[in-house]
Amino acid sequence: METLSTSLAFGGVQGVYRHTSAATGTNMTFSVYVPAHAKGEKLPVLWYLSGLNCTHANVTEKGEYRHACAEFGLILVAPDTSPRGEGVPDDPGGAYDFGLGAGFYVDATEPPFAANYRMWSYVTEELPALIAAEFPTDMDRQSIFGHSMGGHGALTIGLTLPDRFRAVSAFAPIVAPGQVPWGHKAFSGYLGDNRAAWRKHDAVALIEDGARRKDLLVDQGDADTFLGEQLKPNLLAEACSDAGIDLTLRMQPGYDHSYFFISTFMEDHIRWHAERLEIAPERAVENVEL
Amino acid sequence: METLSTSLAFGGVQGVYRHTSAATGTNMTFSVYVPAHAKGEKLPVLWYLSGLNCTHANVTEKGEYRHACAEFGLILVAPDTSPRGEGVPDDPGGAYDFGLGAGFYVDATEPPFAANYRMWSYVTEELPALIAAEFPTDMDRQSIFGHSMGGHGALTIGLTLPDRFRAVSAFAPIVAPGQVPWGHKAFSGYLGDNRAAWRKHDAVALIEDGARRKDLLVDQGDADTFLGEQLKPNLLAEACSDAGIDLTLRMQPGYDHSYFFISTFMEDHIRWHAERLEIAPERAVENVEL
Repeated sequence: METLSTSLAFGGVQGVYRHTSAATGTNMTFSVYVPAHAKGEKLPVLWYLSGLNCTHANVTEKGEYRHACAEFGLILVAPDTSPRGEGVPDDPGGAYDFGLGAGFYVDATEPPFAANYRMWSYVTEELPALIAAEFPTDMDRQSIFGHSMGGHGALTIGLTLPDRFRAVSAFAPIVAPGQVPWGHKAFSGYLGDNRAAWRKHDAVALIEDGARRKDLLVDQGDADTFLGEQLKPNLLAEACSDAGIDLTLRMQPGYDHSYFFISTFMEDHIRWHAERLEIAPERAVENVEL
Repeated sequence: METLSTSLAFGGVQGVYRHTSAATGTNMTFSVYVPAHAKGEKLPVLWYLSGLNCTHANVTEKGEYRHACAEFGLILVAPDTSPRGEGVPDDPGGAYDFGLGAGFYVDATEPPFAANYRMWSYVTEELPALIAAEFPTDMDRQSIFGHSMGGHGALTIGLTLPDRFRAVSAFAPIVAPGQVPWGHKAFSGYLGDNRAAWRKHDAVALIEDGARRKDLLVDQGDADTFLGEQLKPNLLAEACSDAGIDLTLRMQPGYDHSYFFISTFMEDHIRWHAERLEIAPERAVENVEL
């Protein structure tokens, strides 16, 4: 693992790192924020998965998560959204919603994408092992959230691995990729016609097929231009209602799909995760004033 | 004035706007954050001046000021750092520290810069008039802060117009441009050999020449690579000490020159301004929970 940059921020270290990934066959870049902590202290890990066209950098620069992560003593990890580099196949037309920047957190099975687009394995296996080895983590206390395509990733990973992640939340997630244009395009390209594989990467379908969590938190702006065609949080609300999952779905009047929306509700989400990660109250109190 | 974008953020509106500037003879872009407020309410205005190579966008995306501005009911205005566009002369070598992105908040008198590089007039006269006309402002309550070259701008403007600005603070400011390489290059290019003109745009010289404020706040990272050669906050500390100005200079161990540093101390600075802008306590309390 190579350190590309580190800066002190809110008493902790915001770093950007690069490593060679066996899962994707490429170099992968990610960011990690490690708050100030006592020598030997192991901190819970909050995973943030980003949306279409993003890298680790978008949330790192615009997410406004460091204050709350410092307060609660949470490590935040922000992976990239796809493999990148020479020889990595992209959307034939260079579209933003497939290929580079649009891995959709699946292991592709279709050529020519199957060789590199293995973001499920990368985010759930390879990168966690690296994070556990390199940072002061308590890997028994992890949780996950994300935005848009990354909200899809957080929901599907959290529903598939309920014992690993103590909490799951999302900002404006794609909740049913099998039922919307972005998902159709991505899953056709990465997974082909295998609809059973699609269902394993569709939060609503996973719940319909029996996946369960105690609760979920979703914030969604009602001025989000993708709301009606691509996001459809009502489908998640219906599935959760049928399945007895306690979904807190907050429609936020006037908010759009941007990081101005995400940053507004970032602290709320981190508090939601901190409560479920059983942050010791004195940890929070000690770090409130920076 | 043309609206380029608006997004809801922390209950208020983060906008980006463009207008044709008579001062610079170019189009100028700036951002304004207007927090939620009662109908007819007029809000104090906090000016943020940016550093070398920045536009309005850097602090707008990375500054993490909206939470505190919403809490205290402060409008934040972020101007650009120079004129831009076809025909605007730049550093002959395209350097980052002169010309485009490096206006140094002076009215240039030297050709070929004198026609466009009139950032003093732009920031102290033309843009305030536009802001007063277009936004719900209480222009009797203004204050100013900035970063690096923008810290220089905030200090010199705040020292020159002490009655207009109720508070002045800076992150890692250039405090004595007349004594450091960045300032020598900029002032030689914009102001020529007229050392009297230089002194009117040098915070330390202004104080030596009699400018006064009650107090100032400066945060400075001690891991800032520009500290020793370009920033030299000790020169400001000496001038303030001699002049009886109550300078709070906080050397922040481990912090660099980046927005990771700025965002860490942003809330502190906004609180400093809010106190001096006499924000009604109930205003703050009403808006704490968003």
